[in-house]
Amino acid sequence: MRDVAIVGVGLTKFGERWEHGLRDLMGEAAMNALDDAKMVPSDVQMLYAGIMASGRFTGQEHMAALLADQLGFRNIPAVRVENACASGGTALRQGYMAVASGMHDIVAVGGVEKMTDVTTSEATTALGGAGDQEWELSQGITFPGLYALIARRHMHEYGTTEEQMAAVSVKNHLNATKNKYAQFRKEVTISEVLNSKPVADPLKILDCSPISDGAAAIILAPLEIARKYNDTPIKILASTQATDTLALSERESVTTLKATRISAEKAFKEARLTPADIDLVEVHDCFTIAEILAMEDMGFYRKGTAAKAIADGETALNSKLSVNTSGGLKGCGHPVGATGVKQAVEVAMQLRGEAGERQVSSAEIGMTHNVGGSGATAVVHIMKRIN
Amino acid sequence: MRDVAIVGVGLTKFGERWEHGLRDLMGEAAMNALDDAKMVPSDVQMLYAGIMASGRFTGQEHMAALLADQLGFRNIPAVRVENACASGGTALRQGYMAVASGMHDIVAVGGVEKMTDVTTSEATTALGGAGDQEWELSQGITFPGLYALIARRHMHEYGTTEEQMAAVSVKNHLNATKNKYAQFRKEVTISEVLNSKPVADPLKILDCSPISDGAAAIILAPLEIARKYNDTPIKILASTQATDTLALSERESVTTLKATRISAEKAFKEARLTPADIDLVEVHDCFTIAEILAMEDMGFYRKGTAAKAIADGETALNSKLSVNTSGGLKGCGHPVGATGVKQAVEVAMQLRGEAGERQVSSAEIGMTHNVGGSGATAVVHIMKRIN
Repeated sequence: MRDVAIVGVGLTKFGERWEHGLRDLMGEAAMNALDDAKMVPSDVQMLYAGIMASGRFTGQEHMAALLADQLGFRNIPAVRVENACASGGTALRQGYMAVASGMHDIVAVGGVEKMTDVTTSEATTALGGAGDQEWELSQGITFPGLYALIARRHMHEYGTTEEQMAAVSVKNHLNATKNKYAQFRKEVTISEVLNSKPVADPLKILDCSPISDGAAAIILAPLEIARKYNDTPIKILASTQATDTLALSERESVTTLKATRISAEKAFKEARLTPADIDLVEVHDCFTIAEILAMEDMGFYRKGTAAKAIADGETALNSKLSVNTSGGLKGCGHPVGATGVKQAVEVAMQLRGEAGERQVSSAEIGMTHNVGGSGATAVVHIMKRIN
Repeated sequence: MRDVAIVGVGLTKFGERWEHGLRDLMGEAAMNALDDAKMVPSDVQMLYAGIMASGRFTGQEHMAALLADQLGFRNIPAVRVENACASGGTALRQGYMAVASGMHDIVAVGGVEKMTDVTTSEATTALGGAGDQEWELSQGITFPGLYALIARRHMHEYGTTEEQMAAVSVKNHLNATKNKYAQFRKEVTISEVLNSKPVADPLKILDCSPISDGAAAIILAPLEIARKYNDTPIKILASTQATDTLALSERESVTTLKATRISAEKAFKEARLTPADIDLVEVHDCFTIAEILAMEDMGFYRKGTAAKAIADGETALNSKLSVNTSGGLKGCGHPVGATGVKQAVEVAMQLRGEAGERQVSSAEIGMTHNVGGSGATAVVHIMKRIN
């Protein structure tokens, strides 16, 4: 197994990108990543594309071959992967495996979603495909409803409050104001979150990540040749993934995402690090409660203690641990297939010292955490700047 | 890179399986494969699931985690891959890479589709997602229409006739009568094919593979430990994949599938073999013209000569080259995600001498060819019995 490095990163602005199609968005992000790696399309030997539901959002399946052609990666093997909202992280892990194994040297990893061409109701139905249709969604619950159940139980077990959940949104919106790629560059207050429109009690609209269009791309190379492409290669120290039941009703606990716990434990072991070594982390805050779960299940806080710590500012930019400096899914936006790749792009930019106004000082080691559905898939990466 | 072997195979009957859901079908095939490999679910370290459009056919995305749970592969990494009708072959290639790389020892590869819960019109629309929506399907052409254009051009360039295309259907239906897993165990005649209902001129309904439910599964292991699980491990000699444009209008030629040509050439090179070494091949006959293209583009026949050879019986069971002994997509059925995996199951059964009435005598080397859409993805495998 070879060491693998990120040598190029690219993004599009996230948001309502009505003037661009799926292939345009992916093209923009991928060309940015290739430019960043000083490469031409013909350098790329394999493509992984993380996309959740292009079929339902746009009618288009078979996106990997389409993108390979669009990007000028002619005739190379191309694979679309789908693990719901963890599709991007899954694509990154598959790309990592392809390079680490020695099968390919230069691998492109893309994530894209175009969600705003359908109605909000259609989008919510499509996103419900991430949960268990036969056993739970068919009973009438929506995807936000699943996280509302988790939130209510977390409040019951640990005394977590709606104000503490709102603090996640306030922090992530503030970070997003410093990110030119973010969908919402707009601060919100605790009171605005608490008084925003109810979605699934206790979650309000400002507890929920938005429906977004956008794309993200990464170029991977073996670490031994990475400096040919980039002066600051980012080494991937760990790439792990785990699964759990789709149905919440089948789980031992609904206030712990077991897939997160397993994949984070494995990642720390693989990287020979502990949570205390991490300078910044992008976690999967599809809903505010999800960031609280992530902080606990990844080992940054004991169960039941993260909500207060977040509300106390411990995870604000350049505090104890900088969490979701990009703005997270809440502030930066959540084009589902793109999210897991975007998280890694943000961490790479931070470790390279290129995050501008939102730069974490002396960032050396970063982490990403991408969740599928209400926790049935979790993908974790740990990365380090190579000096 | 390690050598990889198939140590377990399993299928469900293909057809209209209204009494079973997606998870039931995959469960049946996977349990058959585990039994075949004398394994229990906890032996499996990773799962790849090839599924084209479960979102549109059943509302369910995030199938890999769902299946990992259903199959008792608790908490392992699981990845759904989608490359249209080549999703199954793609899943097999990803599984091969995971074992060859040394990242995992025991990997399960599943393919499944449940297509009969929607109307034929809805199914045709969903399958159209394999073609280029923005550039071609939006103009009104259907997926069979794309292959009809290919067929018409092949007839124009090489004098291929509707009778010769019908001969593909007759052969594959005959083979299917000998396969208990096949959807259609019913012979058809040239005249029946020619007089069947027109779908997209010159293709009639009996030139077209059906809409099907079904699943297939394979267990992979490093060759060095394969005999622990199976007395007749099947070594994978080559696993290759290539892409081409989705849009037919963008291709140099519509009578050659370039992705097939590239992936077959690479596979023969990787396996150090020539077409003359192959005893049997399962090719992607989604339409009768597609089998003719495959025979030519894989190098078994010179361009323009395969149709006559097939009509002359050269590719019948136990003739010069046994093609689509399972009945192919036409006779055995085409649950799209399952097909590429089923092709490899059929070849493995043949190489193990377990194909019963349809056994190819002295079969030692077999090949599979799985196409996505109208040729934008092609995946090829070559396999050999280890004595």
